[in-house]
Amino acid sequence: MKVLIIYTYPDPTGFNSAILKQVQASIDKGHEMKVIDLYGESFDPVLRFDRHHKRRDLKDDPAMKPYRNDLLWADHVIFIYPIWWGGMPAILKGFIDRVFAKGFAYDYKGLIPVGYFKDKQATLITTDDTPWFYGRFFQEDYGRVMKKQVLKMSGFQKVYHLRLSFLRHTSEVKRQAMLEKVARISKKI
Amino acid sequence: MKVLIIYTYPDPTGFNSAILKQVQASIDKGHEMKVIDLYGESFDPVLRFDRHHKRRDLKDDPAMKPYRNDLLWADHVIFIYPIWWGGMPAILKGFIDRVFAKGFAYDYKGLIPVGYFKDKQATLITTDDTPWFYGRFFQEDYGRVMKKQVLKMSGFQKVYHLRLSFLRHTSEVKRQAMLEKVARISKKI
Repeated sequence: MKVLIIYTYPDPTGFNSAILKQVQASIDKGHEMKVIDLYGESFDPVLRFDRHHKRRDLKDDPAMKPYRNDLLWADHVIFIYPIWWGGMPAILKGFIDRVFAKGFAYDYKGLIPVGYFKDKQATLITTDDTPWFYGRFFQEDYGRVMKKQVLKMSGFQKVYHLRLSFLRHTSEVKRQAMLEKVARISKKI
Repeated sequence: MKVLIIYTYPDPTGFNSAILKQVQASIDKGHEMKVIDLYGESFDPVLRFDRHHKRRDLKDDPAMKPYRNDLLWADHVIFIYPIWWGGMPAILKGFIDRVFAKGFAYDYKGLIPVGYFKDKQATLITTDDTPWFYGRFFQEDYGRVMKKQVLKMSGFQKVYHLRLSFLRHTSEVKRQAMLEKVARISKKI
């Protein structure tokens, strides 16, 4: 199986970095693995188009081609990122805006969007500082935009979401238990 | 009254640009007005921090100070932006990530976030390509993250959201009616 990890965190000493290392160490050695480190490669998240550079031609943007090839290559895509203001960091939102273009990730059949990635699966691992129950039932997004809007619309059939909540108030012991959970779900991929 | 417009759209010939012009033309001439054009000034939306540049010090980032001053100055903030993949364009998400820092927009009192902008109001004007009913009841975000997570958490008491839906399938006549609605709500500010 081919596994693509899309990793988003600015601080290499942070907990998201520990999650990435845990995933890399735990995935079946028989799988092939690639990592896109959005901060590491200074990805430019700003989608631009105008009268002379049409939005409908974005699917052919040569700057995004390597990322598109990685996505086409992958059987399973793992997103590791923190929840900021309820949603994705801008650098990851821009990756979606620029790479998941119409004609590449989906197309409209009449009014209905039809996704192209029906043979792919995804895992989201998100971190946040909100009590679990509050984020799940009283707050907007917390990974649901990525799961419902982006990945389902692009055809992904199975998306598993591991939400690691309330990190601000989490002890070292509990963080260790979180990393063990990350290892368990990574081994199953 | 002091009105700050935060405008997000890459194509100066697009409908969002027409909305901006309509707002500017319709607002009471007695108000003061400023515009932050995120694409126009090539705003860098990537929030960076690490062990040596702590996240807790973001509120003092000198590069964001002019934007913070604009927000402090404003009585009413108008956001004009398109919904992409259910949410804000990356360049606007990054404006929130970088400018609305803890210690500037809100602080925690124990577990509870307390917003600092209790004397400010906001208006969101968003455009999207989704049938209204579907976006409201079956899709995630569509402006609710900005309204509920960002602005309410930062203390804004009244946030009005004008959603201009299904633009892909909207005639010139209907777009004209949308702009008239934009003029009506702008006059009331």
